[in-house]
Amino acid sequence: MHRQLHLAGFMRPVGIHTAWWRYPGTQPDANFSWPLLKQFAQTLERGCFDAFFMADHLALMHMPMSALKRSATVTSFDPMVLLPALAAVTEKIGLIATGSTTYDEPFHVARRFASLDHLSGGRAGWNLVTTVNPEAALNFSYQDAPKHTDRYERAREFFKVVTGLWDSWADDAFLMDKENGIFFDPDRLKTLDHKGKHFSVKGPLNIARPVQGWPVIAQAGASDAGRQIAAETAELIFGNSKSIEASRAFYADVKGRMKAIGRNPDHLKVMPGVFVIVGDTTEEAHKKKQLLDSLVHIDSMLPNLSVRLGVDVSGYDLDKPLPELPDTNEGKGNRQEWIDLAKREGLTLRQLAQRAGESGWLEMIGTATEIADQMEEWLETRACDGFVVMFHTVPEGIDDFVDKVVPELQRKGIHRRSYEGSTLRDHLGLPRPANKLHFS
Amino acid sequence: MHRQLHLAGFMRPVGIHTAWWRYPGTQPDANFSWPLLKQFAQTLERGCFDAFFMADHLALMHMPMSALKRSATVTSFDPMVLLPALAAVTEKIGLIATGSTTYDEPFHVARRFASLDHLSGGRAGWNLVTTVNPEAALNFSYQDAPKHTDRYERAREFFKVVTGLWDSWADDAFLMDKENGIFFDPDRLKTLDHKGKHFSVKGPLNIARPVQGWPVIAQAGASDAGRQIAAETAELIFGNSKSIEASRAFYADVKGRMKAIGRNPDHLKVMPGVFVIVGDTTEEAHKKKQLLDSLVHIDSMLPNLSVRLGVDVSGYDLDKPLPELPDTNEGKGNRQEWIDLAKREGLTLRQLAQRAGESGWLEMIGTATEIADQMEEWLETRACDGFVVMFHTVPEGIDDFVDKVVPELQRKGIHRRSYEGSTLRDHLGLPRPANKLHFS
Repeated sequence: MHRQLHLAGFMRPVGIHTAWWRYPGTQPDANFSWPLLKQFAQTLERGCFDAFFMADHLALMHMPMSALKRSATVTSFDPMVLLPALAAVTEKIGLIATGSTTYDEPFHVARRFASLDHLSGGRAGWNLVTTVNPEAALNFSYQDAPKHTDRYERAREFFKVVTGLWDSWADDAFLMDKENGIFFDPDRLKTLDHKGKHFSVKGPLNIARPVQGWPVIAQAGASDAGRQIAAETAELIFGNSKSIEASRAFYADVKGRMKAIGRNPDHLKVMPGVFVIVGDTTEEAHKKKQLLDSLVHIDSMLPNLSVRLGVDVSGYDLDKPLPELPDTNEGKGNRQEWIDLAKREGLTLRQLAQRAGESGWLEMIGTATEIADQMEEWLETRACDGFVVMFHTVPEGIDDFVDKVVPELQRKGIHRRSYEGSTLRDHLGLPRPANKLHFS
Repeated sequence: MHRQLHLAGFMRPVGIHTAWWRYPGTQPDANFSWPLLKQFAQTLERGCFDAFFMADHLALMHMPMSALKRSATVTSFDPMVLLPALAAVTEKIGLIATGSTTYDEPFHVARRFASLDHLSGGRAGWNLVTTVNPEAALNFSYQDAPKHTDRYERAREFFKVVTGLWDSWADDAFLMDKENGIFFDPDRLKTLDHKGKHFSVKGPLNIARPVQGWPVIAQAGASDAGRQIAAETAELIFGNSKSIEASRAFYADVKGRMKAIGRNPDHLKVMPGVFVIVGDTTEEAHKKKQLLDSLVHIDSMLPNLSVRLGVDVSGYDLDKPLPELPDTNEGKGNRQEWIDLAKREGLTLRQLAQRAGESGWLEMIGTATEIADQMEEWLETRACDGFVVMFHTVPEGIDDFVDKVVPELQRKGIHRRSYEGSTLRDHLGLPRPANKLHFS
């Protein structure tokens, strides 16, 4: 038996490319259309994907209006409202939603994910994020976003409270004994009584322990602190590695950290995001990419370049080379890298902005066979355990992947032909966590 | 055309009587079973109900373990996870969920209800509550529940922020102009910039204006302050009037307050809760009630009586008359009323506890015709605009009402035979609110 490739569909937004909504044949409201989102989820389920994965934002994207007005991200469903609806119209696919530890309460998050897990028969996953967008803070009565270290400290405590609340009830607490009128066994209920620096939460949770024990925990941990938390607590990493070598190093590092603390490295799946375009020929796939790129307005590119250079470049002449840049106190990103690139290739500002406007994700562009071969290489050389697949547009990107790439992966024996289990943990090969509060 | 009766099904918990889950033929997990809840919602829709209505709790019910262990309320879905799933499997029925203004954030509440409204094609309603259960405070890092006046002050500001966020986008903001790459018109987006005593929320909301403009606003306002807020802002009052005279007085008072501030009194529907048991004969209906009452364990009754008397009576002899009660500093409820009742009717403590354990709601127990007649009288004498119907058990209570009472109401011409509109506002005959931020 080959190692199995795990696949999640990245579905917020439904297309990762800035211009996905302008692509021929696409409905521009696809990111905000219930009938289409239902169709996409059912297509992914037909392709035996492990999960439907929703990122989230608690504010509009932080960009100037000239770019924002061209972005299809501005109106979206709350993931925790969309996923329950999708649970009702799918049967097997996992449902992972992003939930913030900075701008929400652990009792709400625990209860909501437990509800989704019960409603879906054990298919919920929580992508734990600390939320970096500074605009989000202003929507929640903060003056500024909390600092990185505070956010992480709060996230650790938040995680502890949420998982503690999930464990309030033993799995066999609910006797529902009609004859004697006993609904539950009081000995199988424990009160958390958490008192910490950020939260004081008595509990118990007013919902039974989730079907999966705990919904699957996903994270995006990339920084040193993020990797360490992931090694300790995550079961799925939504990663961002642009090369196979970088991903192998990341994979080895995270799995090494797991071994160092006595955790089974198989109990965390490393799944980098990958931007995929499938063509009947390699050339056709690249032509699709060119068409897509040509639909990105320059106003949507400049903000990315400005961020990367730490300077607002919107006043400069677009068709001349990059001028000398003033010094700045803002984060300079990897400014020098971009200056060097412009010099090396003799790019105008417009050309440089186009480069900066690219997805920023690993890209696989080619025929179904080529993409399946690449995925197999990543899997077999332990650069990953699977991918979070990002589509260039919808429904074309999803249909192409499910109808063309999935059969190739199945032929190789690295992707299921039908679901064997019924929970997201079953799909990912993850154990059901023991109850921390009930040991007997 | 007769005045139309509006009907909501009270569905959290699915049965209002303490012993509903012990009733013959009932599945004891019905309050927490997705397939059954789906079936109930579809049955209510078959009966052309205006809405499926969910109360909510942010903690276990505040009662001693001897009573709690006998309560089916302890494990329930978060309403805002259940209702989106029900939206996916129903087509017309409104979906009203309780949302707390004390333990949540206006940005989250605005976004979640807007999401449900879009997902359901305009069927969402928000039952705005301030949450009184003191146990809830302890789950959200408070030491005690905020005081009544603070809760109401916060609720008013919360409402202002939520409705302001819903108005972030003009209804025609989203151009989705693929040709020119303009997703929305920046002139049709407004930032709320709310700065108040309890909240500072910049906005805009990252979701389009709800289909209904605003989801329908429900409240339970009974106190003087509650009635006044309801008269100013509510569109549906979930009331608690035990007699037709009391309800007429309440109705006149609230509608009078609306006229006094220049609001059209038809734009708020007064809907008292009513506990219904249908029998083929009057006698059969009462026998059902007796059977149900006999299934309530004494341990489930005593806490209610203790609350009403302001004294823990669990140590007293159940089969003797009520003894002299010690004085107390706790809220005494309507202690004297209960002492007088016990004396007047010569009740033992057990018998008094049984009375205190009764639903506390208006009851209609009889044949379908009798119940329909009573409802018609309430409607036509302006004691109400409709009812929030509470079932004695499931599925029997729901099936009886839909299959037996609904046809009687239809025959009288006071209840629809099919849905004419598609939104909850359509069903209730409520106008779509104007956008406060966009006047042009």
